Amino acid sequence: MTTRMSQLFVRTLRDDPADAEVASHRLLVRAGYIRRQAPGIFAWLPLGLRVRRRIEAIIHDEMAAAGAQQVHFPALLPREPYEATGRWTEYGDGIFRLKDRKGADYLLAPTHEEVFTMLVKDLYSSYKDLPLSIYQIQDKYRDEARPRAGLLRGREFSMKDAYSFDYTDDGLDASYQAQRDAYERIFTRLGLEYVIVQADAGAMGGSRSEEFLHPTAVGEDTFVRSAGGYAANVEAYRTTAPAALPIDGQPEAVVFDSPDTPTIATLVALANDRHPREDRPWEAADTLKNVVLRLTHLDGSSELVIVGVPGDREVDMKRAEVAFAPAEVTAAIDEDFAKHPGLVKGYIGPWSAAGPVLGEEGSTTGIRYLVDPRVVDGTAWVTGANEHEKHVFHLVAGRDFAADGIADIAEVRAGDPAPDGSGPVELARGMEIGHVFQLGRKYAESLDLKVLDENGKLVTVTMGSYGIGVTRILAAIAEGNHDERGLIWPRAVAPFDVHVVATGKDAAVYEIADALVSELHEAGFDALYDDRPKVSPGVKFGDAELIGVPLIIIVGRGAAEGTVEFWDRRSGERRDVALGEVPAALAQAD
Amino acid sequence: MTTRMSQLFVRTLRDDPADAEVASHRLLVRAGYIRRQAPGIFAWLPLGLRVRRRIEAIIHDEMAAAGAQQVHFPALLPREPYEATGRWTEYGDGIFRLKDRKGADYLLAPTHEEVFTMLVKDLYSSYKDLPLSIYQIQDKYRDEARPRAGLLRGREFSMKDAYSFDYTDDGLDASYQAQRDAYERIFTRLGLEYVIVQADAGAMGGSRSEEFLHPTAVGEDTFVRSAGGYAANVEAYRTTAPAALPIDGQPEAVVFDSPDTPTIATLVALANDRHPREDRPWEAADTLKNVVLRLTHLDGSSELVIVGVPGDREVDMKRAEVAFAPAEVTAAIDEDFAKHPGLVKGYIGPWSAAGPVLGEEGSTTGIRYLVDPRVVDGTAWVTGANEHEKHVFHLVAGRDFAADGIADIAEVRAGDPAPDGSGPVELARGMEIGHVFQLGRKYAESLDLKVLDENGKLVTVTMGSYGIGVTRILAAIAEGNHDERGLIWPRAVAPFDVHVVATGKDAAVYEIADALVSELHEAGFDALYDDRPKVSPGVKFGDAELIGVPLIIIVGRGAAEGTVEFWDRRSGERRDVALGEVPAALAQAD
Repeated sequence: MTTRMSQLFVRTLRDDPADAEVASHRLLVRAGYIRRQAPGIFAWLPLGLRVRRRIEAIIHDEMAAAGAQQVHFPALLPREPYEATGRWTEYGDGIFRLKDRKGADYLLAPTHEEVFTMLVKDLYSSYKDLPLSIYQIQDKYRDEARPRAGLLRGREFSMKDAYSFDYTDDGLDASYQAQRDAYERIFTRLGLEYVIVQADAGAMGGSRSEEFLHPTAVGEDTFVRSAGGYAANVEAYRTTAPAALPIDGQPEAVVFDSPDTPTIATLVALANDRHPREDRPWEAADTLKNVVLRLTHLDGSSELVIVGVPGDREVDMKRAEVAFAPAEVTAAIDEDFAKHPGLVKGYIGPWSAAGPVLGEEGSTTGIRYLVDPRVVDGTAWVTGANEHEKHVFHLVAGRDFAADGIADIAEVRAGDPAPDGSGPVELARGMEIGHVFQLGRKYAESLDLKVLDENGKLVTVTMGSYGIGVTRILAAIAEGNHDERGLIWPRAVAPFDVHVVATGKDAAVYEIADALVSELHEAGFDALYDDRPKVSPGVKFGDAELIGVPLIIIVGRGAAEGTVEFWDRRSGERRDVALGEVPAALAQAD
Repeated sequence: MTTRMSQLFVRTLRDDPADAEVASHRLLVRAGYIRRQAPGIFAWLPLGLRVRRRIEAIIHDEMAAAGAQQVHFPALLPREPYEATGRWTEYGDGIFRLKDRKGADYLLAPTHEEVFTMLVKDLYSSYKDLPLSIYQIQDKYRDEARPRAGLLRGREFSMKDAYSFDYTDDGLDASYQAQRDAYERIFTRLGLEYVIVQADAGAMGGSRSEEFLHPTAVGEDTFVRSAGGYAANVEAYRTTAPAALPIDGQPEAVVFDSPDTPTIATLVALANDRHPREDRPWEAADTLKNVVLRLTHLDGSSELVIVGVPGDREVDMKRAEVAFAPAEVTAAIDEDFAKHPGLVKGYIGPWSAAGPVLGEEGSTTGIRYLVDPRVVDGTAWVTGANEHEKHVFHLVAGRDFAADGIADIAEVRAGDPAPDGSGPVELARGMEIGHVFQLGRKYAESLDLKVLDENGKLVTVTMGSYGIGVTRILAAIAEGNHDERGLIWPRAVAPFDVHVVATGKDAAVYEIADALVSELHEAGFDALYDDRPKVSPGVKFGDAELIGVPLIIIVGRGAAEGTVEFWDRRSGERRDVALGEVPAALAQAD
């Protein structure tokens, strides 16, 4: 059925919405695809819903090809299964919780691992039933602290989430690969550029984990990649530890006065001035900066940790969050320093269970000391002496101090080596559009999902979890397919195949356009037809540009002579086409 | 793509689920269509989802034919619009409420009148934009006190809700009729018997209101209908008041002793024994039973009312709820009687603002007295005398007492007259499957939705609301289409077009069946193929009967000779068909 612009429930806006930070948000609102209902919560107008349905159709298609079966779970779920896996607590403020009239706890599910697991447990009991991949396209809820960028980070959003069930590791690998391949096909069909990066398994538990990132400046994720093919989310990047150095023969550590050295730069300058090295000047990378972090655990308790990182790098709080998950990480506050007088602000040095390695021994004990992977035995550092206005140089790891463990939380920089030896990495911004993930046996163990194997022995099932953000993908496509005048959809997901614009006030033109859209409908094209006789061509063209159907046919004065204009919205090219040639021209357009 | 039973995510159950009261619930769970997640909350397995999608496709089709455009609203909505129309309060415990991390109030929408109204207000401002009909198929939430009967009364359920917007009453009538016609087509296509009954506008406000009821013994609604075409929900039935009778010449009221008359029957027996009428015996219908009800208003305040109904009828609490909406109605409790000593339990008579008409004047004042429509002036009653162990007869309405108003809340009985004069009514049970409703200007006024009319004058928009319970319809179809062995779907909504069952252990049979399903696929039939070589024919047939695809092809021993069995699940008929004739036989089946 042809959709007439005079009937379509839409109103295009000249002005950007006040709260829109990114192009996709701005244009989807202005062109009448979505409307905000609350922060991070949107209503979908007919245009938006059409694009969404086309994206979903591609996903359904590829899920079927990957052998996944569709199911549908409620959004409103009881607390118990999420309690069993610990996620009821782990999600903290990040989920919507509610009580029913009887006082029972419910949540609006952020993802559905638990209930998929329980459903399989309910239905299946033998290895013969496996492998199984099931999925849904369903609305998810997260109570984001800062919902932003329109659909890119919403509080109610649509996701395709799939889960695989196997009883062997090889089976899981195969199920994982099938979903991963399907994702590649989906993004290719959607015309959406992607990079597959290694991701940290994070709070979800499990082992192999890869994200599909769409490279874009508005992305919230930073990732690294090398020319040699390494790619990882910056949270998943692992710093390569250098080889240990010989300790014998290294000079003694020397404590020195260091007043007025509030920064690494001033410390390095002072060291070069008062205690110059023989071979080369001191550099920021020679210093060891000891940062005090506060970890808040799920049970509400908190602890301080000290992390030593090379002075030329900052701590990357996102990497820290992943490293210390599920604890929450914040910088220590004045109160923490007040409580621990042994922590001499600005002069903190290495630490041990007994307290500071230098300084007043035993003044403050029981704080863990972790170091950057670069701090291997034999490396010598300029660092704090745990005493006011004192630093130390030639302090040698493995001789003068030993850490309680490694914390790989320093920032990653362009030029850092890829851990697989494939060369230096570069940094880029990306938006997560998909995630494939080997959960392993974590959920199956928590929820006791076992099947009988070939030998009649009960074995725990191993699972994978695979997600695509449907509404986010739509925004990502809009983000990558627009110009200053509006959206330009890829044909695979455009709300209509063609936008027919009749211009002027001549009734004969509209009769010709009417006949054309009928003909196009017969030929299988889904057309949007701008049939508004009292609207100026300028407004109609502006609407067409904003709405972004990539192929536009203008029926105007030439129509009486059998000629219309064929407008390729993406290239901007406009050329005359004979009326009879329109279906062929549309079919041939790429 | 053919679905193989060996792959399908399903497990059929021999036993009924413990909590299942009705056939649809029992069979949908046993056949592997749905699984319970929490009271009134279900997950959908592939079979269930297939039926749901087919029902939805028919609804989408008829909505498009009715000129309605699809949109999609969030389930999670902010409090404010529902506050503006009063429904935040009116819904009481009936909706799920929650707070986000910032403490803002949200609800899981039970229906979407408010936000549709606000969206139209946001987009449109002129009569030229109207009429408009928009709809969605979306999940709704109600915190039912007693979720029951599987999908028939759930807490998360799928609904098609449409809303129409007009600026004239005639326009609303036309939009209403278009949806009403679409509903008739939808239910006809679904093979779902329906009766259109007048409904009470109830808490939703508005004027014309009709329900589509599916007559079924498990229905929660009672409706009345006459042979002459009248049909109404029992809550919407209006009792016809008889003509007033002359008062002059009626005998004086007589108070009499009436100990030991706890029931109407004992009272009537006593009256006939001690104070017999001359013309005929006293009957229950001659008595006036005065019932004390407690109304709890939305603001939390409460009041008592006394309602006089003929003694041969009970008060129908559902009718009372509608009559007194939005107040909540309960029977008065002992405490109420204790507080009002003038209310002499068992002997309550007519009342006035000054207190009881008989009995101790002024003892208890300020209680409203309402009567059944049958209590017209000149009717004489046997009723309480507001004094312990005393009743009165010959108490004449309009002479001895006057009511403050009418309360049409007595039970409706078979044989009562239809209010339109179309004869006596009969009572039946039905399940609400659709509701069309003229909201009028209630919501538009609350939310200030106005447009400019032809004269440039701002006019308030008038609206309609039209709902179909998608998941409930599915259950209603299951309820009406099963036998003791399982479901028997109408072809229009069956999960598959045909169920091919290969039997035995002969590999050649499975090869023939494989070829047949390929051929059927080519011919456009969506087949479920039971390809399980190690499962007995009995189990396969049992599964086929339970799952309920209406046409079954059995490929067994005769296959080698080119013959299969064609099994009509509904009629039970089984006949041989040549392999090559199967597509034709399927196409010809009705």
